[in-house]
Amino acid sequence: MIECNNEKINRSSPVEYLDKLVDDVCATYEDSKGINHLQGFDIPCQQEVLEVIEELLEIVFPGFKGVRTYDMNTIRYSVGEMLSCLHKKLSRLIFKALHYNCKMENCKDCEVSELTANATRTLLEAIPRIREVMKKDIHAAYDGDPAAFSLDEIVVSYPGVKAITIQRFAHVLYHHKVPLIPRMMTEYAHSETGIDIHPGAHLDKGVFIDHGTGVVIGETATLGDNVKIYQGVTLGALSFPKDACGQIIKGARRHPTIESDVTIYSGATVLGNITIGKGSIIGGNVWLTESVAPGSKITIPTPELRIKTPKQ
Amino acid sequence: MIECNNEKINRSSPVEYLDKLVDDVCATYEDSKGINHLQGFDIPCQQEVLEVIEELLEIVFPGFKGVRTYDMNTIRYSVGEMLSCLHKKLSRLIFKALHYNCKMENCKDCEVSELTANATRTLLEAIPRIREVMKKDIHAAYDGDPAAFSLDEIVVSYPGVKAITIQRFAHVLYHHKVPLIPRMMTEYAHSETGIDIHPGAHLDKGVFIDHGTGVVIGETATLGDNVKIYQGVTLGALSFPKDACGQIIKGARRHPTIESDVTIYSGATVLGNITIGKGSIIGGNVWLTESVAPGSKITIPTPELRIKTPKQ
Amino acid sequence: MIECNNEKINRSSPVEYLDKLVDDVCATYEDSKGINHLQGFDIPCQQEVLEVIEELLEIVFPGFKGVRTYDMNTIRYSVGEMLSCLHKKLSRLIFKALHYNCKMENCKDCEVSELTANATRTLLEAIPRIREVMKKDIHAAYDGDPAAFSLDEIVVSYPGVKAITIQRFAHVLYHHKVPLIPRMMTEYAHSETGIDIHPGAHLDKGVFIDHGTGVVIGETATLGDNVKIYQGVTLGALSFPKDACGQIIKGARRHPTIESDVTIYSGATVLGNITIGKGSIIGGNVWLTESVAPGSKITIPTPELRIKTPKQ
Amino acid sequence: MIECNNEKINRSSPVEYLDKLVDDVCATYEDSKGINHLQGFDIPCQQEVLEVIEELLEIVFPGFKGVRTYDMNTIRYSVGEMLSCLHKKLSRLIFKALHYNCKMENCKDCEVSELTANATRTLLEAIPRIREVMKKDIHAAYDGDPAAFSLDEIVVSYPGVKAITIQRFAHVLYHHKVPLIPRMMTEYAHSETGIDIHPGAHLDKGVFIDHGTGVVIGETATLGDNVKIYQGVTLGALSFPKDACGQIIKGARRHPTIESDVTIYSGATVLGNITIGKGSIIGGNVWLTESVAPGSKITIPTPELRIKTPKQ
Amino acid sequence: MIECNNEKINRSSPVEYLDKLVDDVCATYEDSKGINHLQGFDIPCQQEVLEVIEELLEIVFPGFKGVRTYDMNTIRYSVGEMLSCLHKKLSRLIFKALHYNCKMENCKDCEVSELTANATRTLLEAIPRIREVMKKDIHAAYDGDPAAFSLDEIVVSYPGVKAITIQRFAHVLYHHKVPLIPRMMTEYAHSETGIDIHPGAHLDKGVFIDHGTGVVIGETATLGDNVKIYQGVTLGALSFPKDACGQIIKGARRHPTIESDVTIYSGATVLGNITIGKGSIIGGNVWLTESVAPGSKITIPTPELRIKTPKQ
Amino acid sequence: MIECNNEKINRSSPVEYLDKLVDDVCATYEDSKGINHLQGFDIPCQQEVLEVIEELLEIVFPGFKGVRTYDMNTIRYSVGEMLSCLHKKLSRLIFKALHYNCKMENCKDCEVSELTANATRTLLEAIPRIREVMKKDIHAAYDGDPAAFSLDEIVVSYPGVKAITIQRFAHVLYHHKVPLIPRMMTEYAHSETGIDIHPGAHLDKGVFIDHGTGVVIGETATLGDNVKIYQGVTLGALSFPKDACGQIIKGARRHPTIESDVTIYSGATVLGNITIGKGSIIGGNVWLTESVAPGSKITIPTPELRIKTPKQ
Repeated sequence: MIECNNEKINRSSPVEYLDKLVDDVCATYEDSKGINHLQGFDIPCQQEVLEVIEELLEIVFPGFKGVRTYDMNTIRYSVGEMLSCLHKKLSRLIFKALHYNCKMENCKDCEVSELTANATRTLLEAIPRIREVMKKDIHAAYDGDPAAFSLDEIVVSYPGVKAITIQRFAHVLYHHKVPLIPRMMTEYAHSETGIDIHPGAHLDKGVFIDHGTGVVIGETATLGDNVKIYQGVTLGALSFPKDACGQIIKGARRHPTIESDVTIYSGATVLGNITIGKGSIIGGNVWLTESVAPGSKITIPTPELRIKTPKQ
Repeated sequence: MIECNNEKINRSSPVEYLDKLVDDVCATYEDSKGINHLQGFDIPCQQEVLEVIEELLEIVFPGFKGVRTYDMNTIRYSVGEMLSCLHKKLSRLIFKALHYNCKMENCKDCEVSELTANATRTLLEAIPRIREVMKKDIHAAYDGDPAAFSLDEIVVSYPGVKAITIQRFAHVLYHHKVPLIPRMMTEYAHSETGIDIHPGAHLDKGVFIDHGTGVVIGETATLGDNVKIYQGVTLGALSFPKDACGQIIKGARRHPTIESDVTIYSGATVLGNITIGKGSIIGGNVWLTESVAPGSKITIPTPELRIKTPKQ
Repeated sequence: MIECNNEKINRSSPVEYLDKLVDDVCATYEDSKGINHLQGFDIPCQQEVLEVIEELLEIVFPGFKGVRTYDMNTIRYSVGEMLSCLHKKLSRLIFKALHYNCKMENCKDCEVSELTANATRTLLEAIPRIREVMKKDIHAAYDGDPAAFSLDEIVVSYPGVKAITIQRFAHVLYHHKVPLIPRMMTEYAHSETGIDIHPGAHLDKGVFIDHGTGVVIGETATLGDNVKIYQGVTLGALSFPKDACGQIIKGARRHPTIESDVTIYSGATVLGNITIGKGSIIGGNVWLTESVAPGSKITIPTPELRIKTPKQ
Repeated sequence: MIECNNEKINRSSPVEYLDKLVDDVCATYEDSKGINHLQGFDIPCQQEVLEVIEELLEIVFPGFKGVRTYDMNTIRYSVGEMLSCLHKKLSRLIFKALHYNCKMENCKDCEVSELTANATRTLLEAIPRIREVMKKDIHAAYDGDPAAFSLDEIVVSYPGVKAITIQRFAHVLYHHKVPLIPRMMTEYAHSETGIDIHPGAHLDKGVFIDHGTGVVIGETATLGDNVKIYQGVTLGALSFPKDACGQIIKGARRHPTIESDVTIYSGATVLGNITIGKGSIIGGNVWLTESVAPGSKITIPTPELRIKTPKQ
Repeated sequence: MIECNNEKINRSSPVEYLDKLVDDVCATYEDSKGINHLQGFDIPCQQEVLEVIEELLEIVFPGFKGVRTYDMNTIRYSVGEMLSCLHKKLSRLIFKALHYNCKMENCKDCEVSELTANATRTLLEAIPRIREVMKKDIHAAYDGDPAAFSLDEIVVSYPGVKAITIQRFAHVLYHHKVPLIPRMMTEYAHSETGIDIHPGAHLDKGVFIDHGTGVVIGETATLGDNVKIYQGVTLGALSFPKDACGQIIKGARRHPTIESDVTIYSGATVLGNITIGKGSIIGGNVWLTESVAPGSKITIPTPELRIKTPKQ
Repeated sequence: MIECNNEKINRSSPVEYLDKLVDDVCATYEDSKGINHLQGFDIPCQQEVLEVIEELLEIVFPGFKGVRTYDMNTIRYSVGEMLSCLHKKLSRLIFKALHYNCKMENCKDCEVSELTANATRTLLEAIPRIREVMKKDIHAAYDGDPAAFSLDEIVVSYPGVKAITIQRFAHVLYHHKVPLIPRMMTEYAHSETGIDIHPGAHLDKGVFIDHGTGVVIGETATLGDNVKIYQGVTLGALSFPKDACGQIIKGARRHPTIESDVTIYSGATVLGNITIGKGSIIGGNVWLTESVAPGSKITIPTPELRIKTPKQ
């Protein structure tokens, strides 16, 4: 029965309305800058960014994904090949992004090649440092979570590790003012982990984000060593600085500074250009918009819960 | 060593218990309506729904995914081909879903072909309108977020854009009472972005959801123009209307109406069939179950945080 | 223009710094136990775990993914083939994980083969029981959600179903003390659904998690029958028991016991080794660190919201 | 330089001539029966035929391709699953081909379902017999070729084995008058091996074709047991029987009968409806158009080669 | 056992000789022009050529491969899209090939863009004509082969059709002096069919090559209408014209002209710049190096076969 | 209509005969050594062999396939990585083949590891030499074929180059008595090119095979420098030496020795353990079973063709 009808469907000509619809859709392509990408110049595409991320993760955590095996005897060849490959892909991607910017701003892209070379090199040269920092992050996770049984377990199953690693690379490109790519990188991490760290945020070593879903860390936030953050924490902006014309000023400092050894429990919201002093503990669900001194312990007063217990 | 043992494993016959296990599993297939899909009629499958979504996104944001390139000279051919293809896939998918419904309700599917044709056509014809609306959404995001540097950046890296676009298409099918598919579409968006908008929700233009993780917007919610929503916001039901027999009434109105120009900050919970008046601002973490007048500004009183600062 | 520059880029030798960088990266591989996986022994890899999960889901919900079709007449062959295949893959994977443990602890892996056989068999033999339990979960979802129109809809589009099914299998391996794999399984579910249930948590039948983004359920938590949980709920630890040396004691009991028929609304936080009595209702955003009697209803007092309504 | 020009190319509008070309191509589609396949009814496609062949080969030579492994303990599940799958694919494919025939001949396809079921079943039920026959073929190859070191070597590396196996299956469908598919099967074998055996040819057991490139065996040829054939041998037609109108009679008997134990050396051409008697040997390059008695040995007289040897 | 040894293998360091081997291999890359392709400029690669061929075949025989379906209502979109796509791919490929030539000959590639545009356009505009010619070829095959039961069967299973179609397209590029690509196209056809037609050969309409394995048709050969050729036929050169220095003159005329309605049976060899007159029949295995008049019938005298028949 | 019937087909239970068929097929698996590969030990599989071949070709002709690009600056990393990878794959493959042999011959595979290491190393170390030899082959092709316009053209489009390169590697393994793999390698080349060179044949440098379809070169054949061979040439055995029991002696010398600078034209057949003296020319279709002195020129006398020319 179904298939008979199915045949009828296929037979029913779509043409009555299709031609008009094609015209209508094409008409919306005419002038809609910002949601077309039809002609003229390229932008970095998601697939390319994803590949670069996967290769960076493979170099930082070699062998964990399980798609390649390595041998200490021949590791230099493997690493050399991966880096050569990354060098090519990154150069192409960063060039596209910088060139895109020039087109957007109608400038001549006279320095794009040099800027591309610099950004690519800086990113690649950051790998050894980021590996060292990630070791500290992973030890921090191991020390801080009673559910963690080994360092390897943390690498293969803690979303925070993935999100932070990607952000650390995105941050390098952010400093080189490479457009689009850093944000695409962190959004990929966000999509995979529920942890949304802006590429602009500065994270010191030993950062541990547990569970992580719903964590938001804003563009101008700064995190010191050994900061520990739980799910649902927001490090956000209280208000957006505006210029004389009432336009939001892009990129202005508006997020918290979290000093070393601070712990922020789940659901806490910390807003504005404030400072949480070294070693402070911010309790769950706390809503904080002012700086606190080092060593502070902030909690919300347990509200008088309304508890109705049935008569027995 | 390992491999020797490994060989032993492979040699150890699985058959001792396998035959019985096969029987046991098959026995559970006998009558478990609702978690089997073994015979008789098809349902739309995830892979097909995913393909349709990807193609709809490609038409709305042509060129951004980076898997295809277009040329203004030949764009009509590309669009025509994509729409012909979508027409076929959507017809097949919607037919399956409607036919499935008939089987479930033991009705004759005499009108399924016509309903399929209507739903398919309406969905496709909605594309130009949804493109125009999305332009407004993207400008809203640009204007509202100091971290956004270009419209393109928003398209490629803002999860809210993806979630809302998909929901707008799912909403069209929801209105045509196509079962299963709309929910599969929004759940895909939920899985990718952490933003869970029910296909039944009505969204006007210029909606901006920032970060978005944990946002839940219920089936009968309504959002006016230029509504701005942050991560962790719930627009939910306070209680579920029940019929005389105590059964929950499916689909009854139970979610908020958010009028135009409202902003709802992170973690706020707005519940029930209430109205948030035009231009209101709902502060972070607010828990709201009653209507508020236009232009209201609602915040929770900053609780007296308990702050222990160490002696210095 | 762009391409000319592009050529320049490709020509610009990467070698000036590449050789040194290769050395630097390889140097970081020398001793960094925990974030390398270069030589000596295998660990279970993500791709393998993912395949096992997909095949388990296919057996529990046959036909829903839409990649295979079945026929009641030949279902025994299909199931037998899938189980044989799973037996092989699981044996290999579990063996790797157990053997890995032996290497980590420098013990002889004399019992690994036997332990592998046991864990594999127990997992496979759990399939019929888990199918029966999932039926109850799905009916619970149907009964509890006014937006759910059919059991099939729940299977294909409710993230909670996916997260719970995967956790139930991970839980079996957790009890057999298989390292790494259980956590990789639940983290996959977390990544897909935003629902983070530790493999150690015990879930009875009829559990329903709605929307689910941000839900965290800790290692030693216990959920009775028909528990209902909404997005953003945390069942966490209040503090971590430490040993005499101040080291966190791994695995110690520290999470809540949720008795049957309890409902916990969105954003509630329930912490510590406490008990929520049968049939209790925990309101949205409640922060609870003490046990409550059966039948309790806990809500936060509606705060006096500060509402500024514009003069009219 | 190259890329600049490349850009120019992409910029050069293809549209000047593309629209006209689209019209011209579409115009050729209007009425060209036989080289279009645009609408109305399906024909079996190459990809589907290829899949069926691969699965038949997998059942006949299990494990050789190396893509699947089997276990004697669970082999029934594997075989059952493969046969169920083949049953479905073959039914669909054969139905398409038979239905296509009906359309071509404007008959009602009233018996297509039954014919499909018969052909499918006969083909599947031929598998055990064909396996037994192939064992004899492989032993024949082993005994006849000094370069063959094991039976396995013959299975994995002798093109004749592949070509003959496929032809044996195609022959079953040929007898059921299934159109298109048998020829597509043998042409696939031809393309892989250079051996072109028409599906209509009848091959007894123990046939060995060595090297095989250029071998052509016609539709009505018959080969007895233990026939041995070398590269470049043609068993063809001398002339084509025509009907009263001078039209070639399709399918008429016109190829040789090769009795048992005959050997035909490379490059020999045997033409017409003749008989090569049992045990005969046909020498290389022989051109034969008349029957020969059993036990004959036919060679071309070594021609007086013209040999110019340089003076020394 | 095996796996233990296997482990030993993996452990045995490859490094003792690997480093030297890497050096040795790289040393051979230094100066070996012609078998390296390491740097500097691109050549068309096999994968790209293959894609272009597949797309050309899809346009000429739409729907036969079975990977796409078409609908007469929307065929213009499908064709337009395929042609736009082909235009891009061909332009890129031809540009590469022409640019490669310039580099090889150290000329400036000033006209490459224009030559590319011309060659691409000519190739695409040849499609309607080649379709018409192929119709004639296919009818010729149908009329000439008693084993052919339908036109469709010829399209899907006659290797000659594939080889000739591809050669007809390669011939267009050959005339535009595009290097490398034409030969790669016909070699692909050769590999698939055993039929080796040089791109330079000129084929009129209604050409039929049956079976085809081993057919070789040289660069300067010409075939009239309705020429029929069987397997193993060579239309080759007798000797190669040399210049004053004894160097072979590339491209000089040296192959036969076959006039219309000629049939050449299997294994015949026709060599040199000679003419086979209209309607002639060249018998199997004939070796011919001189022109023959129209209407000739050439056969080799049946040699007195030496036949030993056993006594009875 | 079609689909209705199709549904009937799917509904028609395959089970009536399927269970019996499964039994019948499995029964044929019981004892059929040589055409099963169900349990116990592995053999090298086609897919693995193919991968190894592709990687060897990539190293010998780097960059030609177009799937990878190289850079002279980083070529050592690329080569090192490819060789490390090849080392692993080859070791595994050769080990399997040698171990298979031990099982077949019921010997202990005590030396398999060492033999594997030797064969692998010899094969890899042959790469630079084979590259040098292939350069000579390619120059020979260029000098000998007026249709060849560049060295690159020969690499990308001459089947002889592919067949000979693969055979040269297979020959190395043949000398190490590795079973199965060498033959699988040359059969792959045969399938792609129609050129069937046994791995045992010895080829000196500068060998050129033109067109090549149907060329067969036997196990014990030897070719000197600069031998030129055309399509359809057989270098075969005249008869097979047998032992006292009448069994064919495997591997005995039985094929021709072709000295340097010999040319053999298309279709010639050279049989037996004979020697073709240096610089000889063997004409097309010659059938030769006796040695000829250096510098000989052998042709068949042009037969008196029977030519019927129509009266005019």
